[in-house]
Formats: sequence, structure tokens, C-alpha cells
Amino acid sequence: MTKHELFHHILRKQSFLCVGLDTDINKIPMHLLQEEDAVFAFNQAIIDATQAYCVAYKPNLAFYESLGVKGLIALEKTVAYIRRNYPDQFIIADAKRGDIDTTSEMYARAVFESSDFDAVTIAPYMGEDGVKPFLAYPNKWTILLALTSNKGSRDFQWMVDANGEYLFEKVLKKSQEWATDEQLMYVVGATQSKTLEDIRRIVPNHFLLVPGIGAQGGSLEEVARYGLNKQCGLLVNSSRQIIYADPTEKFAEAARQNAQQLQTEMAMYLKWITNEK
Amino acid sequence: MTKHELFHHILRKQSFLCVGLDTDINKIPMHLLQEEDAVFAFNQAIIDATQAYCVAYKPNLAFYESLGVKGLIALEKTVAYIRRNYPDQFIIADAKRGDIDTTSEMYARAVFESSDFDAVTIAPYMGEDGVKPFLAYPNKWTILLALTSNKGSRDFQWMVDANGEYLFEKVLKKSQEWATDEQLMYVVGATQSKTLEDIRRIVPNHFLLVPGIGAQGGSLEEVARYGLNKQCGLLVNSSRQIIYADPTEKFAEAARQNAQQLQTEMAMYLKWITNEK
Repeated sequence: MTKHELFHHILRKQSFLCVGLDTDINKIPMHLLQEEDAVFAFNQAIIDATQAYCVAYKPNLAFYESLGVKGLIALEKTVAYIRRNYPDQFIIADAKRGDIDTTSEMYARAVFESSDFDAVTIAPYMGEDGVKPFLAYPNKWTILLALTSNKGSRDFQWMVDANGEYLFEKVLKKSQEWATDEQLMYVVGATQSKTLEDIRRIVPNHFLLVPGIGAQGGSLEEVARYGLNKQCGLLVNSSRQIIYADPTEKFAEAARQNAQQLQTEMAMYLKWITNEK
Repeated sequence: MTKHELFHHILRKQSFLCVGLDTDINKIPMHLLQEEDAVFAFNQAIIDATQAYCVAYKPNLAFYESLGVKGLIALEKTVAYIRRNYPDQFIIADAKRGDIDTTSEMYARAVFESSDFDAVTIAPYMGEDGVKPFLAYPNKWTILLALTSNKGSRDFQWMVDANGEYLFEKVLKKSQEWATDEQLMYVVGATQSKTLEDIRRIVPNHFLLVPGIGAQGGSLEEVARYGLNKQCGLLVNSSRQIIYADPTEKFAEAARQNAQQLQTEMAMYLKWITNEK
């Protein structure tokens, strides 16, 4: 999917919501456990209930890997289900991969060939040769960690050099030598919304994947205020707030309601940029 | 496995060799492709041929993930095969994972519960809460990326602050607040052997996992000179030089020879520390 296509998908849906499929077998409603593939059954219901209100899905690979081969089968079925039924959705492998070139080639093959993801999250620690193999796939996206939403982001991402430049700023600047905003996005946590304004100066045109609203405490309004650009430029993720909105048989309806509520709010913020035109 | 047990395993074997199982279906001998699980058949032959000369195996998860569910089955069979037949071997999941706490918990479950690895490689970019969940498992190891062997290590790992401290030095120092050398190791590339001396001052007692000899150009002698400590403190990895030593039906015998050659060299270096006693 190109950047242009993604933007038009967002305008059509009046939403920049990404639903995080962090599906934990210990948190899904009891009645689903009798299904042969409970994780897939849960995802299927969540996807059907929320697809009208979101533009992207982000399976978090850790949750599937924790179940071994069975989990990977559920993941592959989930990706195939979205592709078949809702082909306009943008599918992100939240994988935080990144290794030497020959290994990153294999990770790229895993997400873009063995699976049919549109994008993958990548950790920048190993630098350019860990990122490049993912960029070899046209119309596929690399989403580089810049400033994450967690407490541990303080440990290294805010390291500062003699010129006052932070590590996450170096990541934003250096990586622009490797690819354009047609292939590269960045992860910027919603809990860092005051910094979003500064980040937008470094990457005015890039899409940002923003986790951390809801359970992690970030504010959607602040993210929209500091993060929106002329082509939206935001994919805001919500996982737990949507998929675990209700622990009973009504989980899908509750997920729908929460997704719709976020979409309604997002439609309001999208007016800020469409009215400017 | 405790640090003490690992050291005694090294003394018994007179080796600190780790064999990297970066098994690429496109590089294994043709005749194996008729096997039902060619990747596993290849690994099995490599393991049987090399186990006398090494103390650890390191499957690189990317290579298995690139094959989808089939690859993951081959990986699980490989780990189980080592456990069953060579229970004293140390098994490392080369995964370069690392995410927010709830997600890292799932990755930890994947490698230490769903699979039976002894250790996992972790990228430090997301800081403490991305590492902690792995440390909750007693006698399991977290191997944190410090200074990697690739060209891209220059991009961020050598970032320097106003006090002259590099990012990889911060990783080495900060992470010692999270765990001791009984649970934490570091990745330090063999191509950075001159820096190994400086790194040993920061982490005198830790085990280091050292990739990069052979195909990537690092020297085993230099690694031993600057890296060995009183309890060995080194696991030196070789992947391509061993597993792809020969492309024909003689691949396992060629792997055995190359592993034995490295072991012989290592036994010589181990005398430096045992003679000191």
C-alpha cells in the first residue's frame, strides 16, 4: 500500500485507528476456549466488529509466539482472514525485529513473503544494515522505533550527545538517509505527546505509529494536536482498551463500541486537516 | 544452567564454541531436500557431527520464521533433539527481541516455556522494562546486545555523550542495575576485538557472546586475548564457517572438521586461564 492509498483509506473511513491484536489466551472470554482455535475465533470476532472503524490491524507477534506452533497458525489465519475479507486494511507485524543484513533478510522474508503483512516494526539498535533488507520490498513499510511509550524509554532513547541531540532524534535523522516517507514510518509513544511537536519538526511528512493511548495513559487529543500533518500522518493504536473492553460473550460488541467511539473522536480531528484545504 | 555449570561444561569440553544454526533452506545440500523436514535433517546431522567440539547451539530464529509454520516446527524439533541427546549443551534463541513489559513477558514465555531455550538475545533500545520479564526465569539467561559485529553498529552504538561515554557502554553499565552476571550476558562482535579490552573493564565477570569470527572477519585469537576471564567468560559463535563448510553430502564431516579445528585452537587459549590457577 502506498502512502497516498493509506491517506485515502483514512479519509474514507474517517479514522486513523489501528487495532492491536495482542491476543492473550488467558484473557479471552471463557466460552471461546471450546473453539478449536480460540485465538483465531477471538480475532475473527474482533475484526468483524471493528473493521468499519479502523484502518489498520497490528498483531503483536509475541502473543502468538508464546503459544508455539499453534500460535503461529492462529496468526497466519488471522492475516489471511483480514486480507480476504477486508482487503483495504493495513496490516502491521508488531515484531520489533532487527539484526545483521543476512538475518534481517530472513525476517523480511518471514513478514512480507511467508506472511502477507504491509509493515513491520523494527528496532534501530543495529543500524542501517539491519533495516535495509526490509526496504527492498516495494509498497511495504518499515516502522522504526524512535521514542517508545514505556518507562524504559528513559534508559537509552533520551541519551544526549555534546550537541544536545537525543538518541531518538539521531534515529529519526539518520534513517532518513536510508529511505523516504514512502517506505518508512516511526513509532512514537502517545505518552510522549509533548515531544511529538519536536518530532514533527524532524519528520514533518512521515506517518507515525502511536501506541500508548488508553491502558498506557496517553491522550488521543494531544496526539492529534501535535501529530497530525496534511496527509494525516498518524496511525494511533489501541489494543487492550478495545479487545478486552468486556470479558463476557459481549466482548465483540464492547470492542465495536470502543472502536467506534475512538473513530468518532478521530473524525473530529481529521476536520482540522481537511478544513485547511 | 548456572554460570558455574557453564564454566565446567567449557572445561570438560575444552571449548567455548557456539555453533550458530542459521539454517537456510536455499543453502543446504541438495540431497536433503527430499527429506520430509529438510531443515531439521540438516540440523540433526550438523549437531551430531559438532556436539563433541562445542558447548552451545544458537538457532537464529529469523531463518526458521522465514519458512512460516513449517520452519517453527523444524526449530522446535531441533531444540528438543539437542535437549534429549546432548542435555549438557547450552541453547541460545538468537531472537533480538525486546518490547514493553507485557509484550516481553510473552516473548519470555515463547523462548523459556513454549520452547526450552537456556538463553535469548535481546535488543536494549526499549530499556529496563523490556528486559526484566526475561530475568524472572531462574537459571535462564538474557544476552543483551552491546556492540554488534555489523557495519550498522556505527550508526547508533558509538553515539557519545558529553562525558565521552558511548551508547554501548551505557548499555553495559545501566543493565548491571537490573541483574548480575548470573543472568546477564552481552553480545560483543568479534570484529570489535580492540574494544573488547575496554569492555572487559566494564564487565570483568560477565560472559560475552561473540559473533563475527569467520565469515564476518573477526579473529579468534584476538577475541581470546582480550576477552577471556578467569571463568572463561566467552562463548564464541561460528555459523556459516561450520554449517556451510561443504555443499555436498560431505557437509556434516566438513562441519565436524571445522568445529574440531576451532575447538583445538580454543583448548590452547583455555590453557592461559587454567595455567594461572
